[in-house]
Amino acid sequence: MNSRPHIAIDAMGGDEGVRVMMAGIAEARRRHDGLRFKLFGDEARIKAALDNHPNLRAASEILHCDGVVDGNEKPAVAIRKAKSTSMGLAIQAVKKGDAGAAVSAGNTGALMAMAKLALRTMPGIDRPALAALLPTLGANDVVMLDLGANTECDTRNLVQFAVMGAAYARVAMDLERPRVRLLNIGTEELKGTDEIREAAAILRGHADLAMSFDGFTEGDKLASGEADVIVSDGFSGNVALKTAEGTARFVTDLLRRAFTSSVRSKIGFLISKPAMHLLRHHLDPNVHNGAVFLGLNGVVVKSHGGANATGVANAVHVAARLVEENITERIASDIARINTFGKAEAVAQ
Amino acid sequence: MNSRPHIAIDAMGGDEGVRVMMAGIAEARRRHDGLRFKLFGDEARIKAALDNHPNLRAASEILHCDGVVDGNEKPAVAIRKAKSTSMGLAIQAVKKGDAGAAVSAGNTGALMAMAKLALRTMPGIDRPALAALLPTLGANDVVMLDLGANTECDTRNLVQFAVMGAAYARVAMDLERPRVRLLNIGTEELKGTDEIREAAAILRGHADLAMSFDGFTEGDKLASGEADVIVSDGFSGNVALKTAEGTARFVTDLLRRAFTSSVRSKIGFLISKPAMHLLRHHLDPNVHNGAVFLGLNGVVVKSHGGANATGVANAVHVAARLVEENITERIASDIARINTFGKAEAVAQ
Repeated sequence: MNSRPHIAIDAMGGDEGVRVMMAGIAEARRRHDGLRFKLFGDEARIKAALDNHPNLRAASEILHCDGVVDGNEKPAVAIRKAKSTSMGLAIQAVKKGDAGAAVSAGNTGALMAMAKLALRTMPGIDRPALAALLPTLGANDVVMLDLGANTECDTRNLVQFAVMGAAYARVAMDLERPRVRLLNIGTEELKGTDEIREAAAILRGHADLAMSFDGFTEGDKLASGEADVIVSDGFSGNVALKTAEGTARFVTDLLRRAFTSSVRSKIGFLISKPAMHLLRHHLDPNVHNGAVFLGLNGVVVKSHGGANATGVANAVHVAARLVEENITERIASDIARINTFGKAEAVAQ
Repeated sequence: MNSRPHIAIDAMGGDEGVRVMMAGIAEARRRHDGLRFKLFGDEARIKAALDNHPNLRAASEILHCDGVVDGNEKPAVAIRKAKSTSMGLAIQAVKKGDAGAAVSAGNTGALMAMAKLALRTMPGIDRPALAALLPTLGANDVVMLDLGANTECDTRNLVQFAVMGAAYARVAMDLERPRVRLLNIGTEELKGTDEIREAAAILRGHADLAMSFDGFTEGDKLASGEADVIVSDGFSGNVALKTAEGTARFVTDLLRRAFTSSVRSKIGFLISKPAMHLLRHHLDPNVHNGAVFLGLNGVVVKSHGGANATGVANAVHVAARLVEENITERIASDIARINTFGKAEAVAQ
């Protein structure tokens, strides 16, 4: 299955509806020959959307269901509908081995809760984490995790996130030894919470892992390119991610205002439109779409609710790569290594 | 003293040296008639710098000392030099009542440690917090605190930060009832840590305070203008502040690259230079210079180490306003109110 991965698609999730999901997987199929899809949702609407994408028909199987997880539904309510909703059934397909990965653009909280319950946390991992790729000024993107799955984290969680993030960076960006840093409020060894300092001590002692642990980083260095993986608890990670999004929007809004404040600026703006286009492309969330839920027995990818077809295609591409490259096994092999040492260190401390 | 505040200046702090500090206070003096200064540091260098600012001479008293707190000095080491360094003596002047506020552009950690030790935390406040003004798309700036003084915070700390931040916003932005929000990873009542949810419950129950508590906000709304005060623990606040700074720099760097990528863009850029100037002004950290250490028996303002003369002038202006408007008394009166209720609520919980 790994060479020709099946991807389970929650066709009903996302603000943009079935058509955008289908357009997205059609685009992914063109980029990624051999991909096959299991489409969960309303058969009539899926079929209608597929009409525009003849390349998908032979590669897809439609599995009808009526239930949909609502965007505002509480996770505790949603998990009761694991076997009657498009989201729940896409995850079940991964659980049963019918698909290598599930992709949904629906309610993040519900997706995480359902995935955790159905797929279970993998051996050696205490808690799964939400990871995403963000743009940088360096040669490649940066993996950030946890982005909100775990409000509070202990030392073990942070160490495990580092291992999972490094495995993801190796797959997503073809890096041999990703440079990993812990998010902190200073770079000196004494900075931060006990949990962060202890996690740093453990990672520093593990030259045997497929990563280069480079200590701490701060919020102003996220996009600097100095790290390939940035690890934090889910609260700080969520604050950092959203602050970065909000600030990018703030600056581009200011820019728009500045450029429309005078005739001269307006002319300048028109002349430099290709430059603005380049900027927009670099900041476009669709280019970096696809948050991955790491640490489960199976691959689950969250596409942004407002993603366009290219965004969906990117999320599907991420899912396919993670299946092809056996992300779960890679994490398991690294974690086995660290837990042996981890125990000895815990006793020594 | 309040009508003509004396400001104690650590003349030796900051990357830019004595000259920039003197140019900054000279600018503040022009804006703020009646301001008087006590200048701590190397007398010869201060005198030489004052030569360019005749308006300062009559308004200033030079108090020579040889000692300087180094930029990399550990706070624990620095506090031993409280009575021999320009930073330490500026704080001592506030303690003795010789000055209403101290301004330093030196080592933040050392400044906080020295200020806390010399001035002590004010009655009713468990821990002081670092607050700053940040730009927004709204009508006024936003006060953010804590920005790193306290790595971990409990419910009481967060409630007290809200009271201190609201008092600061009333003084700094002339608002009657600042809109206060707690930084969280979602806006639903169930989101976040126990500490944040409990702080929200206490603030929601206090319509008698001079603030309007509006619940939670998220990282992407910091600059939206929906809040006048945003409260968080020092870790998240520091991550948010630095991420905002780093992202603003990231976007403007991208912009510069985009604009120099083609001849057409370069011409566009030249034509729209006034627009870019406007943008730069809005994002200039000097415009928002002056982080305030709130919750002490006295006013201490940290000017950014790399601030220019205008930046220093803004920090001095902030210090003068806080003294004139009796920030400490304002906080004390609000805190007295909340602690009475707080105790009753704590019992009821």
